Parts: sequence; structure tokens; C-alpha cells
Amino acid sequence: MDGIIFGKNSVLEALIAGDREINKILISKNLHSDTKLNTIKELARQNGVTYQFVAKEKFQEYSGYNHQGIIAQISPIKYTDLDKFLENKYQNDALVILDGIEDSHNLGAIIRTCVCAGVRGIILPSRRNVLINTVVEKTSAGAINHIPIIKVNSLVNAVQKLKNKDWWIIATDASAKDNYYNIDYCNMNSVIIMGAEHTGVSKSLLKLSDFVVKIPMMNNFNSLNVSNAFSAIIFETLRQKLNNLNN
Amino acid sequence: MDGIIFGKNSVLEALIAGDREINKILISKNLHSDTKLNTIKELARQNGVTYQFVAKEKFQEYSGYNHQGIIAQISPIKYTDLDKFLENKYQNDALVILDGIEDSHNLGAIIRTCVCAGVRGIILPSRRNVLINTVVEKTSAGAINHIPIIKVNSLVNAVQKLKNKDWWIIATDASAKDNYYNIDYCNMNSVIIMGAEHTGVSKSLLKLSDFVVKIPMMNNFNSLNVSNAFSAIIFETLRQKLNNLNN
Repeated sequence: MDGIIFGKNSVLEALIAGDREINKILISKNLHSDTKLNTIKELARQNGVTYQFVAKEKFQEYSGYNHQGIIAQISPIKYTDLDKFLENKYQNDALVILDGIEDSHNLGAIIRTCVCAGVRGIILPSRRNVLINTVVEKTSAGAINHIPIIKVNSLVNAVQKLKNKDWWIIATDASAKDNYYNIDYCNMNSVIIMGAEHTGVSKSLLKLSDFVVKIPMMNNFNSLNVSNAFSAIIFETLRQKLNNLNN
Repeated sequence: MDGIIFGKNSVLEALIAGDREINKILISKNLHSDTKLNTIKELARQNGVTYQFVAKEKFQEYSGYNHQGIIAQISPIKYTDLDKFLENKYQNDALVILDGIEDSHNLGAIIRTCVCAGVRGIILPSRRNVLINTVVEKTSAGAINHIPIIKVNSLVNAVQKLKNKDWWIIATDASAKDNYYNIDYCNMNSVIIMGAEHTGVSKSLLKLSDFVVKIPMMNNFNSLNVSNAFSAIIFETLRQKLNNLNN
């Protein structure tokens, strides 16, 4: 189901971001009007995007998706080039590398958390990782439109480039000695590497990392979902940075 | 699909916990043997639980679920009674109240995070909240078997009871003034209240709370997934407690 996004949030955020071509918006006649829907219609009018009210039967072919009575036909997201991304100046910023995330819901949730936490970009390998698809777009609640997604052929090369530009590399690993909150995330640009759901961060990336950290686990139940693990870590970096600003 | 759990983790954790009656385990003949599967078979033998290898076609009726070639027929989880729960002694512990969570994946992810972070119990209202179902069990990766789930008719009454027992009540709300990390979670028993995906914590509970906190948001994108928000908060409580122990 490429080229389609589902749900009010996804459509609204794509309109707000404004950098993707929206061919047409279809709205179910049964959909109740609310602030979000009115904003969607207003933004569509302003940007010359057609919207159309259709019978709810028209949505039958999308029944496997949580479409909430609204979809848009849209151009794919544009991936960002790493070299171009690194031309900008960064200070005390954060980047995320996802090393082999397989689940679309996890990727969507991580993208959403990244935007909430002010992460500057997300790096994905072009193979061995789920890429942006309809489910990712929906789970991200439109966040996908507000953060550069950088696709690279080799994560090892990407990390080397980042190190050359003085980014600090922090990988997560369940068997690490250091807890994630014992790193000082202030006064540096940091790259957080999250690994695949089952296999974790690959050895070649662990070797290149400046720090390897874990989240302490209670109960011998060592099985935190990757998006929830990421959330704990990224908001700790934000806590430190905001505390630092206030001192 | 009540009374069925899916996937190796769910079946394994139910066997380890050992407090639910497992009628039968069905394993696809196509499933590759590995450490987890061997442990499942060993625990089943030890506990007199029948397991059976079946043709993969037998799993067709479960095709909507991520069954990974293994299911178990199991008795429902036993909800815990709040009064009984409160008869035990607690010190510097955490409880979670979920006030109207609608999405099974979110509930499952929160349960999983709770077990990883050492939360002592989860309180759900018997109405207006998704209860434990097959998807919740699967998403929790078996964590559901390792934490008391307390179902109550009235969250307001539950909070009153908790306050009478000197638990501190901390509600989350996007419009709160205080950031979640400015609370000192050490040296108290705390109850974290997370609200419904769209409407947040209900007014009646906000009124009863000792603290109302928010997660600071960057980018004006105020839409963190509830399980990821919870993860940021609960691991901050753990960070404080572990730091406190070391000082």
C-alpha cells in the first residue's frame, strides 16, 4: 500500500510539513467534522490539494489499515543524504542510528519519540532494516514529516564519517557495564545506536562506539521493547540538557 | 481469541510463572528447534503439560496473530484484588494506574516495561480500558505473567485507598507545569497515572493527585505515544532510586 497515508494525524502532518506532493485526499462522508478535519480542509485549500468526500464503501480496500475514514495519495518521503546533512552546524545535538529494526510499529514509534525529543535525524541502513512504509507512517502519527530520514548503504561508513565530524557514538547493549544515565550527554553531539529486536547492535558498530551502555533491568526479565528502551535513553539526554541550561 | 496465547515468549513465560492452567501446547512441525523451544518442552514435561507437534495448516485459524508456530490453550490471567495487594509491605515501590488506555499494543508494551523496571503492580479500571486479551499477552512478551494486574471498579476509590496507605499519587498531563524529572521519587511509594491516548488522565484523578507532571516536548509536536511516555518516566524513577542506593 505504497503512496497512501492513513488517518487524520498523518494527513494533517503531511500538509503542515508541505514538502511532499499530495495528489488527492479522500474523506469518508461518515467522518464527523472536528478541528483536525477542518484544519486539513483549510490547509488543502490553501495549498491547492484536492479533497473529496466519498462513500465509506470506498475505504473497503484499505480495511486492513487503521484509516479512520481519511486517506491521502502522496509521494514517498524523500530520504536525506548524510553528507548533505553533515554540512550543517550542530551543537549539543542528537542523532539516532537504527541497526536492523524489523518491526514497522517499532520504527514508527521511534520516529515519533525522536520528533518529541528534538532528535535531529534518523539514520537507517538501506538493507536489513524496515524502511518507511504505510504502517511506519501511521504509527509515527505524522512525525515522519518533521525529521530527516537518512538512508545509507553502510552504517560502518556512516559512523566513521560522524566520528570524523566529532560526533560521539553511544551504542546500547544489554551486556554493557555502564548504565545509560551515567554518560554526560551535555556539550557534545551524540549518536545513539539502537539494535535489532533480537540480535542487538552489530559487533562492527559496537567496536566503533565511544560508549556502550545498558538500561538496568529488574526482575531478570531482560526484554524491553526497543522503542521503549529508546524512549528511556533519549529523554535522559534531554533531561540532562534541559537541567544544564537551567544551571 | 480468548484462552489462547501465541509465540515462544508468551508460552515460555507462562510456563515459568506457573500460576495459570495450561491445557495444551501446539507446536508446528515446521518450527526449528532452539534453546527457547527446548526449555518450553522441558518445562512442559516437568509440569505435566501436554505438547503436540501438528501440521502448520493447523495454525491457519490463527493466521491473524503473530503465532510464530506455537500456541498454548491457557486459563485467563487471574486479576489481583487491591485490598489484598495492599496487605503487603511496600518500601520505595512503584505502582501504575492506567486510566482508559484503548490500544492493546500500548497496554502490552506498558506491562512489559513495568516488569523490566520493577513496578510492583498495574491497576486497570474494569470499564473504559482495554483489558487483558490475546494481543496484550503477545505484546507483553509474556511479562503479563510476572506482575499483578489489579482490576478495580472505580479508580477514584482505588486512589483514595492508596492515599490512605501513604502512597504518593503522580499524574501525567501535557499541560502540567512540572517536568517529571523534578520529582524526588526516592523514599516514597509512588503511583504513576497514565491517561488515555486522546483524552489524558481524567479530571477527578488529577484533582486527587499529589503531583501533576509532564514530559518536556521539543518541536511543538506534542504527541508522544503513551507507552513511550511511560517508559521515560518509569526509568527516571529507577535512575533516581539506583543512584540513591549508590550514594
